[in-house]
Amino acid sequence: MARQFVVGVDIGGQTSKIGVVDTRGDVLAQSVIRTDTFGEDANAYIEALAEAVKACVAAADKTMEDIRGIGVGAPNGNYYTGEVAFAPNLAWAAKEAVPLAKKLSEACGVPVSLTNDANAAAVGEMAYGAARGMKNFIMITLGTGVGSGIVVDGKVLYGHDGFAGELGHTCVVRHNGRTCGCGKTGCLEAYCSAIGISRTAREWLEASGQPTPLRELQNITSKDIYDAAKQGDNFALRLFDYTGTLLGQSFADFVAFSAPEAIVLFGGLARAKEFLYEPMRRAMEENLLKIWKGKVKIIFSQLKESDAAILGASALAWEL
Amino acid sequence: MARQFVVGVDIGGQTSKIGVVDTRGDVLAQSVIRTDTFGEDANAYIEALAEAVKACVAAADKTMEDIRGIGVGAPNGNYYTGEVAFAPNLAWAAKEAVPLAKKLSEACGVPVSLTNDANAAAVGEMAYGAARGMKNFIMITLGTGVGSGIVVDGKVLYGHDGFAGELGHTCVVRHNGRTCGCGKTGCLEAYCSAIGISRTAREWLEASGQPTPLRELQNITSKDIYDAAKQGDNFALRLFDYTGTLLGQSFADFVAFSAPEAIVLFGGLARAKEFLYEPMRRAMEENLLKIWKGKVKIIFSQLKESDAAILGASALAWEL
Repeated sequence: MARQFVVGVDIGGQTSKIGVVDTRGDVLAQSVIRTDTFGEDANAYIEALAEAVKACVAAADKTMEDIRGIGVGAPNGNYYTGEVAFAPNLAWAAKEAVPLAKKLSEACGVPVSLTNDANAAAVGEMAYGAARGMKNFIMITLGTGVGSGIVVDGKVLYGHDGFAGELGHTCVVRHNGRTCGCGKTGCLEAYCSAIGISRTAREWLEASGQPTPLRELQNITSKDIYDAAKQGDNFALRLFDYTGTLLGQSFADFVAFSAPEAIVLFGGLARAKEFLYEPMRRAMEENLLKIWKGKVKIIFSQLKESDAAILGASALAWEL
Repeated sequence: MARQFVVGVDIGGQTSKIGVVDTRGDVLAQSVIRTDTFGEDANAYIEALAEAVKACVAAADKTMEDIRGIGVGAPNGNYYTGEVAFAPNLAWAAKEAVPLAKKLSEACGVPVSLTNDANAAAVGEMAYGAARGMKNFIMITLGTGVGSGIVVDGKVLYGHDGFAGELGHTCVVRHNGRTCGCGKTGCLEAYCSAIGISRTAREWLEASGQPTPLRELQNITSKDIYDAAKQGDNFALRLFDYTGTLLGQSFADFVAFSAPEAIVLFGGLARAKEFLYEPMRRAMEENLLKIWKGKVKIIFSQLKESDAAILGASALAWEL
C-alpha cells in the first residue's frame, strides 16, 4: 500500500512541534517537545525527537509503514547537507554542524528532508496555502526575525550552498543603520521584525515628546504597538507606516531580482496587516520599474497559524 | 546530418552583430548591420536582419540546413514571449511589443530564442567563459547601463513574466539618490555604469577643489577617468573606489538572495578591474553574512570582448 502520510517537524528555539499530515493538508495528530532542555547534546535531542515522532504517528492511528517521510524546518537548516549548522538559538547546534536529517532518518526508518523554517513555510504555502498554483513567489516571514523563502519555477531557490534566501539580512538602511543580531548594520530584520519595530518605538520615544500609551510601558512588544494602533494611537500608527514603508522599498528590490507573481507574508508581525498593507504597497509601487507597477501582489498567508509551521515542514516530505 | 552550428545576434541601439558559431565557441563568420536606420518600421529591420543572417551563414560556407537555431540578445528582450517590448533605445520597438523571435524564425526557417542582452551574456559565460561548470552565479554587465543575468541551478532565472534580473535598478543610495534613466532614484545603474561614474565625477568636481586633469575636459567619459587613474590621479582613483564600494555593497545583498558561487563581471567599465576589484571585494565582504564571508568569488569575463555578445546570444540557440 502506498505511504499516504507525512510528518512535519518545526524546530524552534524553545519547542519543537510535530504533526502527522495527510495529502489534503489535514493535521491528524500533533505534539510538542522542548528543544532547549538538552544542553549541547544533539544526540539526546534527536533521540527524544524520534520518540516523539513515533508516538505522534501512533496517536494518529498509523504506523511508520504509513509514513512516506519526515520534513523538518529548522533555523539554519541546510537542504543540501541535511545539517543544522551554527544556529545561535539552538544550544546543541550552536557550535557545530549537526547531521540532523541523517540521524533522524536512521532513528525513524524513513527518509528525512530538512530546510530552514522560512523555506519550509514557502513550500507549505505552495502546497496548501495562498501560493497554491504559483510557480514564482517570495515568502517573507515577519516574526522575531525576518526570514525568506524564494520560489522559482515551482522550486525553492537554494543556491550554490543551500543557504540562499536570507533577505532579512539585505540592507534597508545604508547609512547609520542599526546593528542587527547577525553583526551587520542596517539589515531589514533589524527594522521590520517584531523586535525591529519595538526598537524603532524605543528610539522614537527618546527622540520625540509625542504622547502615546506606549510611553508608560517598561518593555514594548510588537503586540503592544499593535494594540495601541488598534486604539487609534498616532505614534503607533506612524511606527507601522515606517515599518511598512521599509518593507515595501525592500520588496521592490526583491521583485527586480526574481520577478515573482506575489510576495507572501507570514508570521506574528504580519497579523498587523491592516496597518502594514497600505504603506508596504505604496512604497513597493513607488520603487518598482514600470514593467512591474500594479502587477505584483502582496498577499498574506491563509494557513491556520497553529498548523502552518508543521504543514510547511511536512510539505517537504512529499518530494521524498 | 545533425545541425552543428548556431547563429548569435546581438542587437544594440546602433548596430546589430551577427555571427555563425560552432560547438566549441569559435566564430566562423560575422557581420554587422545598422539597427537605427529603420525608423519605427520593425518589419523592415527584421527583413534586413534575416538577409544578413543568411549572408553570414553563406560566408561561413554553410547553408541554413546546417543551422540549429538563432539566439538573439536584445534590450528588453523577453524569453517567454520572444518579444522586444518598449525598448527606449530601439525606435522600432520603443512604442510596442515586436514579436521578433517569431518573425525572424519565419524569415529564416529555423527556431529563434530571444532574451535580454545581460541574460545572453550569462548564458555565453556559462557555455564558453568564466562560468563554465558553474550552476549558480550572477552576471553583472557594467556598460552604458548596469544589466544582470542570474543563473540558478544552471538555468537563467526569468521569473513569473520573463523580466527577472534587473539588478541595475535595485536601490543602492536610498536617501537623496540621483535620478536614473528608468525614472526611479538611487538605482545601482545611476552610479555604477559608465555613465554613472561620469556623473559622480561631475558632481565631485563641483563639490571639491581637488586638482585633477579631468577638470580640463568638456565631457568626462569613463575612459577618461580610467586613463587618469592609470596616471595615478587621486581624484580618479577615489571615483573608482567609491564606485567599487557601491557595487560591493550591492553584491552582498545579491548573495543573500541567491547564494551564487560567483559574481561575474563584464562590459566596458569592468575593464577597469585593477581599480574596481579591491573596493568591490572589501565592501562585499564587509556586508556579507558570516556563512558567506571569503566564499563568494568576484571574477571577470574571459570572453574576447569582440565575440562575447555574439557568443552569448548564440549559446541560447543550443537549447533549441
